[in-house]
Amino acid sequence: MSGFALDPRLAADTAPVCDLPLSSVRLMRDARFPWAILVPHIPGAVEIADLATADRRTLMEEVAQVSQALRRVAPCDKLNVGALGNIVAQLHVHVVARRRDDAAWPGPVWGSGGAVPYAEGELDRIIDALRAILRP
Amino acid sequence: MSGFALDPRLAADTAPVCDLPLSSVRLMRDARFPWAILVPHIPGAVEIADLATADRRTLMEEVAQVSQALRRVAPCDKLNVGALGNIVAQLHVHVVARRRDDAAWPGPVWGSGGAVPYAEGELDRIIDALRAILRP
Repeated sequence: MSGFALDPRLAADTAPVCDLPLSSVRLMRDARFPWAILVPHIPGAVEIADLATADRRTLMEEVAQVSQALRRVAPCDKLNVGALGNIVAQLHVHVVARRRDDAAWPGPVWGSGGAVPYAEGELDRIIDALRAILRP
Repeated sequence: MSGFALDPRLAADTAPVCDLPLSSVRLMRDARFPWAILVPHIPGAVEIADLATADRRTLMEEVAQVSQALRRVAPCDKLNVGALGNIVAQLHVHVVARRRDDAAWPGPVWGSGGAVPYAEGELDRIIDALRAILRP
């Protein structure tokens, strides 16, 4: 992790969940969607296509782990997985638990309006539940 | 591939590029963005999280291959990779070459308005160039 620093915009928009071998898992501060991001601890990483094959493999398994954990904590109709980086270039992968009755369905969560804060205690409840699955 | 059939909406919106070991690669019929999709030939596949680990690994490498090919054919500022499936559930992964001057930057391409047809010959030119890289 030498040389790695979390982008300050990602830090501000999210709360820490746990560290996996390659990635930090964080939860978006947006009560509209159960929404995790994975940020690989690779200095300068921007594109999945430019990762070493072994890192790509680990990232994919961590995305699957977080996806499985998120839908246990927040049952959903569909998972959305995305790596965009048009605004924050630092490589981060979104995993979002979507429901047919959520605020943006069937559109994407990105660009879907402003975040809505969680009610007191709810962010911590989700984070604790994710930790219990990801770091048992 | 027994039991696999491409979703008719995906078929209508795209043109075939080539088949890789796991996935069919197709190009969106939308001149606004150089935009490929990968559709794994796995009957009933919907979520990346539910694939076998070996298939997930292959899919990740095929996403990287297509990403690398697409940006050679269409130089870009950022690649966007996403698996949403809110409208068409059949598992498909988008790989989009984004430019700071494109029609949706910095927003996502999904939900960004109607497709714009390619000029005569341009779709085939991109497909031929992708094939030359992906199936040399």
